[in-house]
Amino acid sequence: MNQKPKIAVILSGSGVYDGAEIHESIMTMYAIVEQGGEYQLFAPDIEQHHVINHLTGEQMKETRNVLIEAARIARGNIKPLSELSMKNFDALMLPGGFGVAKNLSDFAFKGPDCEVLPELNKIISDAVKEGKPIGALCISPAIVAKVLEGVKVTIGQDKATAEAIEIMGGVHENTKHGEVSIDKEFKVATTPCYMLDATIKDIADGAINVTKAVFRLI
Amino acid sequence: MNQKPKIAVILSGSGVYDGAEIHESIMTMYAIVEQGGEYQLFAPDIEQHHVINHLTGEQMKETRNVLIEAARIARGNIKPLSELSMKNFDALMLPGGFGVAKNLSDFAFKGPDCEVLPELNKIISDAVKEGKPIGALCISPAIVAKVLEGVKVTIGQDKATAEAIEIMGGVHENTKHGEVSIDKEFKVATTPCYMLDATIKDIADGAINVTKAVFRLI
Repeated sequence: MNQKPKIAVILSGSGVYDGAEIHESIMTMYAIVEQGGEYQLFAPDIEQHHVINHLTGEQMKETRNVLIEAARIARGNIKPLSELSMKNFDALMLPGGFGVAKNLSDFAFKGPDCEVLPELNKIISDAVKEGKPIGALCISPAIVAKVLEGVKVTIGQDKATAEAIEIMGGVHENTKHGEVSIDKEFKVATTPCYMLDATIKDIADGAINVTKAVFRLI
Repeated sequence: MNQKPKIAVILSGSGVYDGAEIHESIMTMYAIVEQGGEYQLFAPDIEQHHVINHLTGEQMKETRNVLIEAARIARGNIKPLSELSMKNFDALMLPGGFGVAKNLSDFAFKGPDCEVLPELNKIISDAVKEGKPIGALCISPAIVAKVLEGVKVTIGQDKATAEAIEIMGGVHENTKHGEVSIDKEFKVATTPCYMLDATIKDIADGAINVTKAVFRLI
């Protein structure tokens, strides 16, 4: 690779319980730049499934927009997911957080019977068609497995989620902190992050290792 | 130091334009753990000055609470600022963001005539009385200068902010990315971060360097 790898990163809001997991999002962005790449952030222009008070865990009586909230992580530099074409990028990366399972899909509510947001479904399929690798952290590998039948991924050690992945036709590999599962055929690299009990340093290690794997697959 | 240094980190919301700058907050937390320390997050239980749509830069017709929004960065593990006693910590750290100048003080509106939130004013003064170092990033050094008359700090190169610091009785030192200004008498270490045009890697470098300086001052 002579040019800087260009990575599309998809956010699902801002905050672990109703949006993108912030530590994983920031560490993914950092890992891409630290490894010599550059990123463009994207998020769908849709309402969040709900808004959670992150202090109490209770639902708040308000509505928020996924793109507008993700813009907090992006410092305003973010585009609607509808503008993402994998033709313009070398790889796709998906940080985790409940937003992946509540906003980008309904995996949090329907498990293996979930649907993935149609525009994201197409982007993931397009990435594979064009031979562009996909890196996914935390719970994101579950929706990658929903779209790509037969893909091998990891979400760490959680049995219920691993079973859901197998029901959707995926293959689950158990991993520990910072470890990366790689499917060479689909060019998919995954790592558990906060699907395990983790410190912020574990998240940095996982994000850096999965980004290195994605760069090698380009 | 035989034990892990315990650092109190103060957040001012979640999002650069109306709260804590997220990249600086996460990189401060990461730097503390990566350097062998541990952190506890705090934020004041008050309404934000306002809510900014981070996509458009426009004000939104809603209200948000600084502690509840900061809990997004904290994954729920955060305490009200009223519970922070510097007796229980080895050092204090303040990431930046407009929340510092809009929620923790009114520096964004009144410049050198600003007031710092009384409970934070006391915490900063207590830290100095007890010989506990203070690390401040981005715009936070301005409010440290308001509280500690005569302290030497940096906010990078911005002339208007540097002048405001001098009017408040501080001494401003120009710095570039990742550089740290140290006042050994007050035990205050500061670095510019997003007060300069920066990448997320510059922010990581600044956070790591200022954290190293704080740890040496303990």
